[in-house]
Amino acid sequence: MLTTKKTIRRQVILDEAAKLFKEKGYGGTSMRDLAGNVGLEAASMYNYIKGKDEILELICQRIAGIYISQLHDIEQTEATYAAKVEALIRLHIRLMVEEGPAVSVANHDWKYLPEPQLTEFKDARKSYEQGFARLVEEGIQAGEFQPLHPSVALFTILSAVRWVELWYRPGRGLSAEELENDIVAMLLKGLAK
Amino acid sequence: MLTTKKTIRRQVILDEAAKLFKEKGYGGTSMRDLAGNVGLEAASMYNYIKGKDEILELICQRIAGIYISQLHDIEQTEATYAAKVEALIRLHIRLMVEEGPAVSVANHDWKYLPEPQLTEFKDARKSYEQGFARLVEEGIQAGEFQPLHPSVALFTILSAVRWVELWYRPGRGLSAEELENDIVAMLLKGLAK
Repeated sequence: MLTTKKTIRRQVILDEAAKLFKEKGYGGTSMRDLAGNVGLEAASMYNYIKGKDEILELICQRIAGIYISQLHDIEQTEATYAAKVEALIRLHIRLMVEEGPAVSVANHDWKYLPEPQLTEFKDARKSYEQGFARLVEEGIQAGEFQPLHPSVALFTILSAVRWVELWYRPGRGLSAEELENDIVAMLLKGLAK
Repeated sequence: MLTTKKTIRRQVILDEAAKLFKEKGYGGTSMRDLAGNVGLEAASMYNYIKGKDEILELICQRIAGIYISQLHDIEQTEATYAAKVEALIRLHIRLMVEEGPAVSVANHDWKYLPEPQLTEFKDARKSYEQGFARLVEEGIQAGEFQPLHPSVALFTILSAVRWVELWYRPGRGLSAEELENDIVAMLLKGLAK
């Protein structure tokens, strides 16, 4: 069992690693770079974490876990399909704004995961996308959404929220809140019948 | 002045190069690979083209030129802002479907352009995005579109159409025409007041 102190230190390592992976790429980041940023000797790092593979695995699993569990919670609610889709869009944008580096690693560096984690991650992502597409499909059947091909609706939503990572920089005349509200306003209106 | 035969051969070289760059990356493609695909000796290639830099330059210039000239034509028309934005969205999707490799090179490999072409390309892209954002802004002022932040509307549109490259494969139950119509239906409804 991990002590609290060890858990906190591990999370600091994961957060710094995500920033470095985003900045220098997964391949371009060494355990030595990471140790320097965390303020540990390279050798001491191994008291907390096995290596880069384990770091990547923990970051990807954590982000995938958030999406899957939120989808699951949302599926259980009695809300309208529009409210369910809105909750997922808001989750994506908030995670991107609040946990940018970790989300970026889960979006781009997952391909460096070793097996079996690679397959597990791809399965988790597929199951999330299928669940999201199902909400869109059910919303169409319920007459709440216009009759779009569910894949087109899904990927239009996912691309809009993922793109935020590439173009949005906070504090240039557009707050995170306005960003979130405007994307929601445009996408939900686009879906509605 | 280029003879017609030389012009045609050059276009074949550019088309094959775009496919190879997309497949193997710009850095991973050699003039020898390209010669092999075109059916020329590596040495004869230089009768048609100076080298990889020139190929990249011609591909990026051609695609940027299509966007800029279409935007210019659309700006001159008397149509509604919705019709203008629709025309640009359809242009993006059609180019992506019909000229996938060249569009992909212009989207990803432009960063390998040498100067001054790199700066020219970035300026052209910026001027295109500003022109597109201006149409959105004018549509909002004219009361045609809902009052979104123009950057949010612009990047939601651009991300939706660029993403097509990554997820759409023709002939899996969704024709290029349905794809185009559904994206237009969702994005224009999303913009409308």
